[in-house]
Amino acid sequence: MSVITFLSDFGLQDDFVGTCHGVIARIAPEARVIDVTHGIAPQAVLQGALVVRQTTPFMPLGVHLAVVDPDVGGNRRAVAVRTVDGRVFVGPDNGLLLLAADELGIEAAHQLADERYRLPDVSQTFHARDVFAPAAAHLAAGVPVSALGPSLDPSTLMRVDVPDPAVGRTQISATVLAVDRFGNVATNARRAHIEALGLASGDRAEVRIGLDRYYAIVADTFADAPPGELILYEDSYALVTLAISRGNAARLTGASAGDELRIVAQ
Amino acid sequence: MSVITFLSDFGLQDDFVGTCHGVIARIAPEARVIDVTHGIAPQAVLQGALVVRQTTPFMPLGVHLAVVDPDVGGNRRAVAVRTVDGRVFVGPDNGLLLLAADELGIEAAHQLADERYRLPDVSQTFHARDVFAPAAAHLAAGVPVSALGPSLDPSTLMRVDVPDPAVGRTQISATVLAVDRFGNVATNARRAHIEALGLASGDRAEVRIGLDRYYAIVADTFADAPPGELILYEDSYALVTLAISRGNAARLTGASAGDELRIVAQ
Amino acid sequence: MSVITFLSDFGLQDDFVGTCHGVIARIAPEARVIDVTHGIAPQAVLQGALVVRQTTPFMPLGVHLAVVDPDVGGNRRAVAVRTVDGRVFVGPDNGLLLLAADELGIEAAHQLADERYRLPDVSQTFHARDVFAPAAAHLAAGVPVSALGPSLDPSTLMRVDVPDPAVGRTQISATVLAVDRFGNVATNARRAHIEALGLASGDRAEVRIGLDRYYAIVADTFADAPPGELILYEDSYALVTLAISRGNAARLTGASAGDELRIVAQ
Repeated sequence: MSVITFLSDFGLQDDFVGTCHGVIARIAPEARVIDVTHGIAPQAVLQGALVVRQTTPFMPLGVHLAVVDPDVGGNRRAVAVRTVDGRVFVGPDNGLLLLAADELGIEAAHQLADERYRLPDVSQTFHARDVFAPAAAHLAAGVPVSALGPSLDPSTLMRVDVPDPAVGRTQISATVLAVDRFGNVATNARRAHIEALGLASGDRAEVRIGLDRYYAIVADTFADAPPGELILYEDSYALVTLAISRGNAARLTGASAGDELRIVAQ
Repeated sequence: MSVITFLSDFGLQDDFVGTCHGVIARIAPEARVIDVTHGIAPQAVLQGALVVRQTTPFMPLGVHLAVVDPDVGGNRRAVAVRTVDGRVFVGPDNGLLLLAADELGIEAAHQLADERYRLPDVSQTFHARDVFAPAAAHLAAGVPVSALGPSLDPSTLMRVDVPDPAVGRTQISATVLAVDRFGNVATNARRAHIEALGLASGDRAEVRIGLDRYYAIVADTFADAPPGELILYEDSYALVTLAISRGNAARLTGASAGDELRIVAQ
Repeated sequence: MSVITFLSDFGLQDDFVGTCHGVIARIAPEARVIDVTHGIAPQAVLQGALVVRQTTPFMPLGVHLAVVDPDVGGNRRAVAVRTVDGRVFVGPDNGLLLLAADELGIEAAHQLADERYRLPDVSQTFHARDVFAPAAAHLAAGVPVSALGPSLDPSTLMRVDVPDPAVGRTQISATVLAVDRFGNVATNARRAHIEALGLASGDRAEVRIGLDRYYAIVADTFADAPPGELILYEDSYALVTLAISRGNAARLTGASAGDELRIVAQ
């Protein structure tokens, strides 16, 4: 049985996701679809690219459909990218697929051009339904990636920049990458950045967000701090994250994706 | 493998949808369930009927379970409607199924009356679980629609009225049908209505919502306007829709379903 | 085909649920996963336990994965609990599984200790992905519960207390257990409590929430009251619930989980 994973910024309020499931089921009735998430913030290509990268290792080998597509109907290309481990990523050529694909190693890239692998009528604004989901379904049904359209030079594919934290002697200037449902605030800092400041588990650090200052305990998990205390920990995708034990750090601090979060050694 | 599609106004916060999936899996373990959406606004029968109609062509042939049911436990009938293409729609007789079924052509309609195809205990308020999902599952498992209960004259089934835009010489008075996650504001106007005003791609039109006036560019897709500009375009279900390129038109204008949206030629 | 049901407080905004689906599909490609709900309020163990109990009878026999886990990474145990009807519940030992399992009758309990049935790297904060989903998948793939780790005395498993209503001669002090998407306010009172006050269908009762007083009609279903009227009815899980016919009782009254709701006979 072949697997298609599916990630988007469509949310679940509308029929976008369900309609793509229908399109896939008509083309590839045997394929199984796993929804990675459809909660990517609208048009947040970088966030989507990060989530594709961090979740793909937990997914079965298969076709990985991802659509965050602010330029739908414009000039951006529609692509399928095969990686050396046998996965195929399908989506817009705007960097969404490339953090994951570059990490795995790109073997081939093709433009989605062949009309046999699209719906008969292609709208201007819903290529997930009309172009990407059909391509993913045909791939899952056995069509080779090379049949979808002309080969592309992988070096011409669009990439997104992941910001790096700025690291000083006593502080780090990190960027908030995402806030999850629990209000945990994930940054682009890594454990090594924290350790370079001389901070270890149990230490207190100052956290600055905008004009506000907080104190957080460097911890391994929520249970290492009393309820209500801020902690800095390495999350399950190895990102330094601000949280509150049994609370909501984003609500307390107002932090959201893109904000600067400064960590200062005491 | 038989397919059941499932649409409702249940949302995904509660267990309503999951419980119906469980009920179906107990009765028809081989059936595959595709969730079209459960984000129909609570009790919004017209919105549900429109989404059933516009999504069904993208769904495999199968059983189409749809539940938006403000009169659950009251006098409204529970029905299954077979269309000439071999689909069977299951849900309350309040118009929800009929926009789609009438368009496809009704072959037969039956009341869900036979107790063998319900759960043993039928509650007063959760017929999706106790009546509709079991009927859909039994249909998917091979029970003929005629076995579910007495035949109904299709002309006696309830219909909903879809409002038509009022069209003047220089303006259209349209109604907002839905606002999606991206803040795109879909109306009941069609491209022909816009063209009858003499408007073509690239033209500017005035849009009035309540006492507010905006200017929008008539466009084919988001990329046709600079970021931040309002556009009027034909969406992927052929409805004239107000949007902002890389923005949220509903948030800007406050438009919501049921509002009047007036389009005035310049 | 084996079934895994899955309930959590993860929401669907993030990739938590999708990643667990991926993990399961890698270990047990043939298993079918039914999402009961992921809308349990963050860290609301009692609410989760109630939903596991009330939904399990509608689910196929199988593995029941449930994760609401505020103490992840701390001392709480990870467990699998087999009940006499052949179900296996998998999750944290914090009471989440026990309302359901105790009601069905516990046959055996085992700690999730064997490293063969976890992911190779176990994070401190995402045991659903690294411990619970893998255990559920291995169970679905045929691993016996006894292989997962040492046997536990069921009497040592954590339980949650479900509050009972306080019942007086003319009034009941109930507790709000949950508010659903429609704004229906479910309490811990049962029909017998209402009847003990001498209230029958069609009667009016006073409802007190905080300092506010309302009048509600005792009813069987929404259609028994005119639109806009408050009703008290027995919901589809046999809980006395406050609702508004075609309206939202939680929005009107401000009631939320944990609040006292007093019902007073007139």
